[in-house]
Amino acid sequence: MRYAVNSKWRTHLCTDVNSTNNGLEVLIAGWVQQIRDKGRLLFLTIRDQSGICQVTLNQRKTMDEIWDRAKSLTIESVVSINGRIKIDERSMLGAELIPINIKIHTIAESKFPIDLTKKKTQMEIDTVFKFRELSIRDPEIVAVMEIKSIIAKAIRDFYVKKGFFEIFTPYILAASTEGGAEQFKLDYFGQSAVLAQSCQFYKQAALCCHEKVFGIIPSWRAEKFHTPKHITEFHQIETEIAFATEIELMEVQEDLIISVLSDVKAQASSQLKLLERELHIPKKPFIKLSFYKAKELLSTLGIEENFDEDFGAPAEFALSLHFKEPFFITEFPTELRGMYYSTDPEKPSITKSLDLNAPEGFGEMSSGGQRVVNYNILNQRILEKGFNPENFEWYLRMFRYGMPPHAGFGLGFERLIRWITKLNHIRETSMFPRTPEIYIP
Amino acid sequence: MRYAVNSKWRTHLCTDVNSTNNGLEVLIAGWVQQIRDKGRLLFLTIRDQSGICQVTLNQRKTMDEIWDRAKSLTIESVVSINGRIKIDERSMLGAELIPINIKIHTIAESKFPIDLTKKKTQMEIDTVFKFRELSIRDPEIVAVMEIKSIIAKAIRDFYVKKGFFEIFTPYILAASTEGGAEQFKLDYFGQSAVLAQSCQFYKQAALCCHEKVFGIIPSWRAEKFHTPKHITEFHQIETEIAFATEIELMEVQEDLIISVLSDVKAQASSQLKLLERELHIPKKPFIKLSFYKAKELLSTLGIEENFDEDFGAPAEFALSLHFKEPFFITEFPTELRGMYYSTDPEKPSITKSLDLNAPEGFGEMSSGGQRVVNYNILNQRILEKGFNPENFEWYLRMFRYGMPPHAGFGLGFERLIRWITKLNHIRETSMFPRTPEIYIP
Repeated sequence: MRYAVNSKWRTHLCTDVNSTNNGLEVLIAGWVQQIRDKGRLLFLTIRDQSGICQVTLNQRKTMDEIWDRAKSLTIESVVSINGRIKIDERSMLGAELIPINIKIHTIAESKFPIDLTKKKTQMEIDTVFKFRELSIRDPEIVAVMEIKSIIAKAIRDFYVKKGFFEIFTPYILAASTEGGAEQFKLDYFGQSAVLAQSCQFYKQAALCCHEKVFGIIPSWRAEKFHTPKHITEFHQIETEIAFATEIELMEVQEDLIISVLSDVKAQASSQLKLLERELHIPKKPFIKLSFYKAKELLSTLGIEENFDEDFGAPAEFALSLHFKEPFFITEFPTELRGMYYSTDPEKPSITKSLDLNAPEGFGEMSSGGQRVVNYNILNQRILEKGFNPENFEWYLRMFRYGMPPHAGFGLGFERLIRWITKLNHIRETSMFPRTPEIYIP
Repeated sequence: MRYAVNSKWRTHLCTDVNSTNNGLEVLIAGWVQQIRDKGRLLFLTIRDQSGICQVTLNQRKTMDEIWDRAKSLTIESVVSINGRIKIDERSMLGAELIPINIKIHTIAESKFPIDLTKKKTQMEIDTVFKFRELSIRDPEIVAVMEIKSIIAKAIRDFYVKKGFFEIFTPYILAASTEGGAEQFKLDYFGQSAVLAQSCQFYKQAALCCHEKVFGIIPSWRAEKFHTPKHITEFHQIETEIAFATEIELMEVQEDLIISVLSDVKAQASSQLKLLERELHIPKKPFIKLSFYKAKELLSTLGIEENFDEDFGAPAEFALSLHFKEPFFITEFPTELRGMYYSTDPEKPSITKSLDLNAPEGFGEMSSGGQRVVNYNILNQRILEKGFNPENFEWYLRMFRYGMPPHAGFGLGFERLIRWITKLNHIRETSMFPRTPEIYIP
């Protein structure tokens, strides 16, 4: 990918220092990644977004001022170097840069707190997050963040191509809705408010404006989870579709996953290679098994679970490990799902719902299903869940004035990234994650 | 735009009911927008995302059950109608739908609280926001939200094409950074935290990962502003570029504005027409005038302003009205800008900064400039602003380990939308806005 912005500090990229450009005078800029001091010869490795290049200084052929400036450099210092490209078979990319002038932008202190060149032990991972503003220079972290940017674009391209509209829902909500203890509370000009755990009610409302909506929407959960799947600040790929059922919902998710994986595979081959991740594009239709069948499968895998409870973490992990491709679990019991899930009129104890799970042990990625649209049924469901309908005034009101039948899901953006990049912990998907312990930087 | 998701409730759109499809049997779905009861003839206008169509029932030719079902419909009820298309020159799109069957999804209560068909008076605007979950069906609001979705895509397409990476910065920050009273405070597992007023520090940090970054980033300001330019929850189009100066920053903004306006003009002609908005694509370079020159111009416009203070609201409005195209104000005094703005070494009282202003009275849209990268200067600037450097520990630390020279800006997403769609008040750009008074729905 090229970088269009040239300035007085840069006209070319490090990877332009190659044999094709032999003889060309260029101005590059970047970080000093390596210094090899061989007495009268000094070799600098300069890094920018495009890659690295070698800058070679020969003291006999270099003006004293430039030589001294080069000798003063430290690892991670930032420079602009004006010079001429010279073919050299021993160099990276078959060429080196012979400097005419060096401008030092910033001299880095010695003893950079993290070794960017090697794999981190578990203990060092705490350092990585403590000095996150520095550790994000690590090539593996850069690769993850580049893939994240590509995934975000792939998701939005998929939806726009399918005729969906992007929505922006509110983040500060009046207190006393669905959730409770797991919400971050705040004071909103004297009123008690919370940060949105999900945009569920708002994306449903948006259907009367757009019919097919999506968004990559910030969400918060104030729970002291300590699992590799939870952070307190995250994004959901939210989708809601008027006049659709849970059947279309599965198709949309299949197409979404295939489309995103294909885009990443095509656009991020070097990053995937660095992360030692081989991506396999799954085929449609994905495997579907009912909640009941999944529980049965678990017992053949030696995990005995209660049929009246949702999957525990070990069960979720075991199921996910069992499959080689993403799979749906469907027909969750009504008791285990939110009040807004539609049930089968002939089997009111079963919702028309589904979760999409990643394979390879990464577990649940999305939850969704068909929604209740009948005002009286919704009111009843709210009562059954032990909530007060008065706390759902505007939400209930919209069902009195013509809501279309609809279905939707929320798919964890960071969970998808974690699976695609095969990371140990979801916090690694975030440039500056928030966990119960981390809120600085 | 086509809608790819078909289901048992819809195979075609309202606008498919046209003379080209004469004789075709289709299944449409939508809202009942109008009912004309002519005794033995009943005309229904059905609305979906694509537009409207006419459904005609003749009692003599209709089964009693279907006739009775049609007669029970109310305005805004939601139906699926299976029928055959028949050419009729008197109808919209030259055809009507003769129903074979009607499925009623939801019957709307009578007396919909808002008249969706007419312009709102100022008093009625309060009702529009009180019943926002219903008023977003208003065709003008739909048009604004559709344009918003197009703008979001246009912005991201522009940046990705230019080689920028999208970043996601944290929203919950440790308390005690730059801002103060204007931040929403919250408890973060016993620690005092705030909602981000801007991602300034984080987007600067991100440069060491990506070099060129952007994002449409949620931001919050807890101020009791009552102007047509302020909401408490908003998004900034954030941009930061390594090895760039304030010169490149202006070019990027010019290209961004031209690119977004061109995309909107090309993709949203019907929406713009409905909003009676004619879009004019400005030419590069935009007009640039210094802070000092802008103050001089104001006095020729009869507005006397203090040269030591930032522009007041009337001055900003007058300047904006004076110009027919977007324009930059540059060289803001150091005292009036954030501590992270770089100054001219020969004129330390002047920053290398710039604001982009919209014409036609819409005022300031963006603020930006070149940043300080020298650790000692930054430390000094923090002290001069009366802050404690200890509160900026991680931010300052990154400047000790090789920060590239860089420049960036934040452009109000909702302000851009307000200007493009020519709305009276910025809260109208948001599906569910937050103001000091509005936080429900």
